[in-house]
Amino acid sequence: MADRYGYNGKILRVDLSRRAISVEEPSEDFYRRYMGGRGFISYFLLRELSGGEDALGPKNKLIFALGPVTGVPVAGSGRNSVGGKSPLTNGYGDAEVGGYWGAELKHAGYDAIIVEGKSEKPVYLWIEDGKVEIKDASHLWGKTTGECQKLIQAELGDKGVRVALIGLAGENQVRYACIINDASNAAGRTGMGAVMGSKNLKAIAVRGHQKVALSDAAVVSSFARQLRNDIKTHPIARNLAQNGTAGHVMGLNSGGGLPTRNFQQGVFDGAEKIATDAINNSILTKRKGCYACSINCKPEVTTGEPYNVDPIYGGPQYETLAALGSNCGIDDLEAVAKGNELCNAYSLDTISTGVAISFAMECFERGILTERDTGGLKLNFGNAQAMLQLVEMIAKKEGLGKVLAEGVARAAKVFGKEAEEFSMHIKGQELPLHDPRLKPGMGVGYTISTTGVDHCHNMHDTLYTQKVWGPLKALGVLEPLPLHDLSPAKVRMLVYYSQWQHMVNCLVFCYFLSSYLSFTPSQMADMIRGVTGWDTNVWELMKVGDRCVTMTRAFNIREGFGKDDDYLPHRFFTPLTSGPLKGVSIDKNELRQAIDTYYAMVGWDKNGVPTLAKLQELDIEWVAGV
Amino acid sequence: MADRYGYNGKILRVDLSRRAISVEEPSEDFYRRYMGGRGFISYFLLRELSGGEDALGPKNKLIFALGPVTGVPVAGSGRNSVGGKSPLTNGYGDAEVGGYWGAELKHAGYDAIIVEGKSEKPVYLWIEDGKVEIKDASHLWGKTTGECQKLIQAELGDKGVRVALIGLAGENQVRYACIINDASNAAGRTGMGAVMGSKNLKAIAVRGHQKVALSDAAVVSSFARQLRNDIKTHPIARNLAQNGTAGHVMGLNSGGGLPTRNFQQGVFDGAEKIATDAINNSILTKRKGCYACSINCKPEVTTGEPYNVDPIYGGPQYETLAALGSNCGIDDLEAVAKGNELCNAYSLDTISTGVAISFAMECFERGILTERDTGGLKLNFGNAQAMLQLVEMIAKKEGLGKVLAEGVARAAKVFGKEAEEFSMHIKGQELPLHDPRLKPGMGVGYTISTTGVDHCHNMHDTLYTQKVWGPLKALGVLEPLPLHDLSPAKVRMLVYYSQWQHMVNCLVFCYFLSSYLSFTPSQMADMIRGVTGWDTNVWELMKVGDRCVTMTRAFNIREGFGKDDDYLPHRFFTPLTSGPLKGVSIDKNELRQAIDTYYAMVGWDKNGVPTLAKLQELDIEWVAGV
Repeated sequence: MADRYGYNGKILRVDLSRRAISVEEPSEDFYRRYMGGRGFISYFLLRELSGGEDALGPKNKLIFALGPVTGVPVAGSGRNSVGGKSPLTNGYGDAEVGGYWGAELKHAGYDAIIVEGKSEKPVYLWIEDGKVEIKDASHLWGKTTGECQKLIQAELGDKGVRVALIGLAGENQVRYACIINDASNAAGRTGMGAVMGSKNLKAIAVRGHQKVALSDAAVVSSFARQLRNDIKTHPIARNLAQNGTAGHVMGLNSGGGLPTRNFQQGVFDGAEKIATDAINNSILTKRKGCYACSINCKPEVTTGEPYNVDPIYGGPQYETLAALGSNCGIDDLEAVAKGNELCNAYSLDTISTGVAISFAMECFERGILTERDTGGLKLNFGNAQAMLQLVEMIAKKEGLGKVLAEGVARAAKVFGKEAEEFSMHIKGQELPLHDPRLKPGMGVGYTISTTGVDHCHNMHDTLYTQKVWGPLKALGVLEPLPLHDLSPAKVRMLVYYSQWQHMVNCLVFCYFLSSYLSFTPSQMADMIRGVTGWDTNVWELMKVGDRCVTMTRAFNIREGFGKDDDYLPHRFFTPLTSGPLKGVSIDKNELRQAIDTYYAMVGWDKNGVPTLAKLQELDIEWVAGV
Repeated sequence: MADRYGYNGKILRVDLSRRAISVEEPSEDFYRRYMGGRGFISYFLLRELSGGEDALGPKNKLIFALGPVTGVPVAGSGRNSVGGKSPLTNGYGDAEVGGYWGAELKHAGYDAIIVEGKSEKPVYLWIEDGKVEIKDASHLWGKTTGECQKLIQAELGDKGVRVALIGLAGENQVRYACIINDASNAAGRTGMGAVMGSKNLKAIAVRGHQKVALSDAAVVSSFARQLRNDIKTHPIARNLAQNGTAGHVMGLNSGGGLPTRNFQQGVFDGAEKIATDAINNSILTKRKGCYACSINCKPEVTTGEPYNVDPIYGGPQYETLAALGSNCGIDDLEAVAKGNELCNAYSLDTISTGVAISFAMECFERGILTERDTGGLKLNFGNAQAMLQLVEMIAKKEGLGKVLAEGVARAAKVFGKEAEEFSMHIKGQELPLHDPRLKPGMGVGYTISTTGVDHCHNMHDTLYTQKVWGPLKALGVLEPLPLHDLSPAKVRMLVYYSQWQHMVNCLVFCYFLSSYLSFTPSQMADMIRGVTGWDTNVWELMKVGDRCVTMTRAFNIREGFGKDDDYLPHRFFTPLTSGPLKGVSIDKNELRQAIDTYYAMVGWDKNGVPTLAKLQELDIEWVAGV
């Protein structure tokens, strides 16, 4: 019998300033209370930072975290989280990423890595079955993610080594630089690549051969079997297998909410050119997946001249197609694919990059920026060449790229007061490609999201369709509500779903699988029980989610965030002027009312600060003292 | 395939003023939100009363309610709830009772009965497989419960008829009259027998032959099997089978918390004489059980002269042994058994009756009452004859009995200011026989209990032992806390357990089985899923409990209750002067702090009023409008 199931019981700490490596073994209660992923990250950031640190300074920490199911042969379990204080928002930051790296780290013997300090020279970490080495990376600095990964695999003599790493954008501390796994999977949001760069850490290479000990292997494999069956037969899984997330392009376009030209419109006349059929019939070479998952929802693409897109970098998915495509007014699919390749090669978040470029385009079209500012670039919407050039300039921090590399919030301050209206961000992070005017319930979630703004823990179809989907029925949402309803009943849906989804973030489990397939929340709890041996249940899991929401909120409160930071960009209060949503906008007062209701429902005071009683109820009273 | 599983989908409404019978068929969502028992009762009372009604007037309602599992062949499922506005507290009232009547009503086709109005003449209800008749009960008025039950069974020509009924105390509207099922099972607390009497309703006789439709019979029978196995092997089940609840007498006495002489002491020198071994070796004839349960924890006793206790009325269990025994300073087991028989025959709650008598005894010993007041009775502690005579006088409302029949709160007002200190009640209901100085966590629950004061939904061993028991570990209580701790962590335990136990009240499931045996909360959820077909889980169940706590609280708020009504009798703030708990008392400020923390944790404002957001979060915003 293993000591502990699911987890390794070991957290690796690497102090790059002192080149010190240590291992901590938290109690089982720690694992049960915080579970993993975002739960671990917020725990350590609350405990070990004290507020006000420079996100790009050596006092920030970069934490890679897994969950109990990571590396267990169940679809959805190949992911990892990575977090720290965000250089984009100066608040809580983390991102999640699929692929194989997370599973590999679990198999190598750790549940999380806390990286602290700053290396004098570029280094990378090499972790193999428990052994840890800090290795020189001077020769890797400046390399693209794809090149660097190959060099590391060659140097270590093992093509099975999995590498999480940064490219030029991370090295240059572009505030929305991401971390790339397997060259094509991005831990995209909140600028964790910049934090990694600030520490002179180029990569973490991992190899592990240990299986995860399971408390009840039969329960786990029965769950895995159900998932495999769903993957073969469930319409949403089939759609993902066929189209990845690219199906959203036409779906949102026909609903009138496809972000177009910096969120000015919700319908894009070139939508079909960057949508599923176009991709499947032209640039797609194959689809790739993640550890233990047979959906294979991730595209791999290639093109000939002039772009010669390298398939190692995968291909554009929905957010990228909209960010670099419709939202920049661009319908040149091959250019968008090139943009995607550049972002992955340089480790740039495609969402922030695209929204930064569309922001610059709108400023250019409105005369706020001129060719003098752009270095001669004609930054009109639809100019694919300009878009690609800007991606390069951002990664290299050249010219206008240097300003945009700071994110749209900071750039707007440089461009002048009138630019601010066009900077589509919340708390400093650029918006994902979902228009709150189409999904007002998600819009409320946008304002409250502790990672700036996020579309993964606040958005579920139940919030804006006439059907109660996925986990929500089992969470007590018995009836659907109208799309544009922002009543307390809608807020309740958001609260419940957001707690559930934060638990999924702590589990570090795939968002698609957790939200839309046929298994129920109870079956998820059973599976976690099968892995860990805990007699857990949906209630305890929801408390894990609630705890996590609250901890990340507490982090932001410590950093000085308050209720005034919970807002939507002004644009969404003005009606769309065309398409199916013509005339539709968010009502500012209704939104404020919904936000206040959210606070009250989750036990935060009128200023959005978690009450002491709430912390106590969640068994995290210690948070009040940090 | 049945239309609906678990439930009949039918609620019977009987207006005794108009002699009108009707049947309502609520939606499935109604059942899923409120589940049954206390959930149904509080729903209908909130909807159909408007506050300020006379609890003994025709506008009050008397609601008998079942749960989804009632009548399913699973141990613990033979129970029913009965509630209305309490004539004792003028707040929310209900009581639960075991036996067979609940299962019989389910098999007869109903999930609940709402009795309204007032019959001109004594009547009883006769329900047989869906058919309902209002029958004359003039010839039954004045009969003891045992006699009356036999007469009804004879009149209906079926010994299988189950009867819930009242005796003289109910007819006379003694404020703590109870309702008796099968002559020996009491729906004891909050005076529902008085409400029944006020409506001139003597009895409800039920016969049903319909099986409960199950969504997944295999899941249900697997749960039933596990329970049967537990009943055979689990130490707590074995103890119950051997001793009923009488084992608590010596347990609490050795802990120093056996209520003695009106809660003046916690150790009783005659404890052994009224404890398990004494019972088992003398008066016990056999043990009886409830529908589908083979524990058989209920004693049946008999005695020879002078008491000639009739075994039809069962025998004294812990609360009765302490209420009529140690708390009256009485160690004459046969007299206590006689007192129990009289209470059941007259339909008197043994807890309130015993505490009313011990109150009178203390007043007598302190000279507040004299023989002139008692009609010559020497009401000293330990006087078994006086105790028995007072039981008769209370049921018949004779002499001092007439004053005591109003409950100790009202009686103290008659006896004068100095008596108040010795009236052991909260919100007008007499205390159960558990001393908060031994179980401070439960003490906090006492103050907040919406049924006045209750020991079933607020008391769990985890609150005062060094072990995390039963459901609490699976609800996220990872560590035990010291007995006398009243910290927020202890309040958290209470909040969680109380929500769980309120859900059990809505399920109308046995308290012992739900709190201490080997099945987990998840298995309970599975069983409910097996019965109803709902994809439910522990989280949804906890919300049912939370909703129910909140609804009953809202009922009390409407009736004018506020934070000042949440208190403990003064006695508990003074230290015990002997025994293992010598010197121990409750700290008044700590208690107030704990109550305030409880409010904040469950989403009530500083005055203990559920916030609008809390109602909205629980999907019961309508409660704000009642």
